[in-house]
Amino acid sequence: MPEPAIVTASVLVIGNEILSGRTKDANLNYLATELNAIGIRLTEARVVADVPEAIIKAVNELRAAHDYVFTTGGIGPTHDDITAECVARAFGVRLIKDPRAVKLLTDHYGEANLTEARLRMAHLPEGAAIVDNPISTAPGFQIGNVFVLAGVPAICRAMFDGLKGRLKVGDKMLSATVSAFVGEGVIAKGLGALQDRYRQLEIGSYPFFRQGRFGASFVLRGTDAAAIRAAAEELRGVIRGLGAEPIEGEPPEPAPADALAKLT
Amino acid sequence: MPEPAIVTASVLVIGNEILSGRTKDANLNYLATELNAIGIRLTEARVVADVPEAIIKAVNELRAAHDYVFTTGGIGPTHDDITAECVARAFGVRLIKDPRAVKLLTDHYGEANLTEARLRMAHLPEGAAIVDNPISTAPGFQIGNVFVLAGVPAICRAMFDGLKGRLKVGDKMLSATVSAFVGEGVIAKGLGALQDRYRQLEIGSYPFFRQGRFGASFVLRGTDAAAIRAAAEELRGVIRGLGAEPIEGEPPEPAPADALAKLT
Repeated sequence: MPEPAIVTASVLVIGNEILSGRTKDANLNYLATELNAIGIRLTEARVVADVPEAIIKAVNELRAAHDYVFTTGGIGPTHDDITAECVARAFGVRLIKDPRAVKLLTDHYGEANLTEARLRMAHLPEGAAIVDNPISTAPGFQIGNVFVLAGVPAICRAMFDGLKGRLKVGDKMLSATVSAFVGEGVIAKGLGALQDRYRQLEIGSYPFFRQGRFGASFVLRGTDAAAIRAAAEELRGVIRGLGAEPIEGEPPEPAPADALAKLT
Repeated sequence: MPEPAIVTASVLVIGNEILSGRTKDANLNYLATELNAIGIRLTEARVVADVPEAIIKAVNELRAAHDYVFTTGGIGPTHDDITAECVARAFGVRLIKDPRAVKLLTDHYGEANLTEARLRMAHLPEGAAIVDNPISTAPGFQIGNVFVLAGVPAICRAMFDGLKGRLKVGDKMLSATVSAFVGEGVIAKGLGALQDRYRQLEIGSYPFFRQGRFGASFVLRGTDAAAIRAAAEELRGVIRGLGAEPIEGEPPEPAPADALAKLT
């Protein structure tokens, strides 16, 4: 098996509202799932406040360390929307009024309603390409390996959906999940030995509490489908060897009583 | 008004399962809300994979930049639980079998069931203090300004609840929220002018779509209650000046039809 082709990405969530607890981020999980599905590995995520120095530093660190960076948030018309300006500064380029973006906004709002604030959304870093916004028109943009998306989840998703076909992708991470009502502390030794035999896979163990009993889901991930199948079969043997039955996939959803039992 | 006393924190979420999209993180929003409530400002969050170099680098960068670091995940008994080892390496200290932790685990599991894997959970960086786990016993720990908590949300919460009384806190961030059915692009100018007059506050604007109409919530945050009250009153005037009615607090929850309308 040749070395897998690896393409990496990071997500940068920009916004005081996530760090204050006001808003639950909904974009990270979406982007993580989508990126993995097309063959890009999300290897880091960060959340920073609406502070220029923090945004600029994060953009520069992440774009140097990953093939792609996807930012969310801070591209609206109000004073706290400073992402475009900060990304321009991170790249050392000017922020310019982009004629294509001006046209999009003029067509959408009409001349009379195109306030100065709305025109702010037409300011992009020089050299940036537009990322379409099929929901509310105000565009995201791409500069270098950085894609700047909206924070509103429906718009973030629509923007990513429109651009994902342009991304360079690597070998897809495949995965299999096997669960069992067996304590992590009981299976850990056999699981560790399995990981040692399958160095090309990532084997994760995630405990759960269901129907009054502890168990765990074991996730085998990698680019080698045959290795995943073989390791999953060995894992079923390890589970049976402990007197438990392998459950294919994730365990059933917890009953409300389970959550309570866990806390008491 | 004297300068506010500021205590900062960062959260480091450790786990492949968050970055692959398998698991939605539930700890960041909880810790953000709790920290803000007691007077600690969450100023950054990161998510890293179960990769030693990534964990060590993030721990060292975050503990240098913030008063506190709270990590979640990676402290169980399986081979993929490497947080304690990585934090020890980040601090340049040995990982030792902590006798207090051994006693806790022995009392919980009994000698006969204290597998080698479970004993792994008694290995802490030398000099670390134990963070109690009232749910499943295996402890978290504190070393320097870094608190290492479990990834399972119920355990993470119980651990934080037990330790939060020991934290040094600063002036609390107070906030007021006023909403209105007014476009961000229409109010942006007045809102920016308000921000200019109240430099000691952070004024955020968060758009929404409800009952078929666009609007936004405006959040005023700071340590100066009088300034927040005065700014909120001015903001109500700005809203009325645009022919809209201020709504105190957040707008009503969206109806299912709203989400659909937004997407189409």
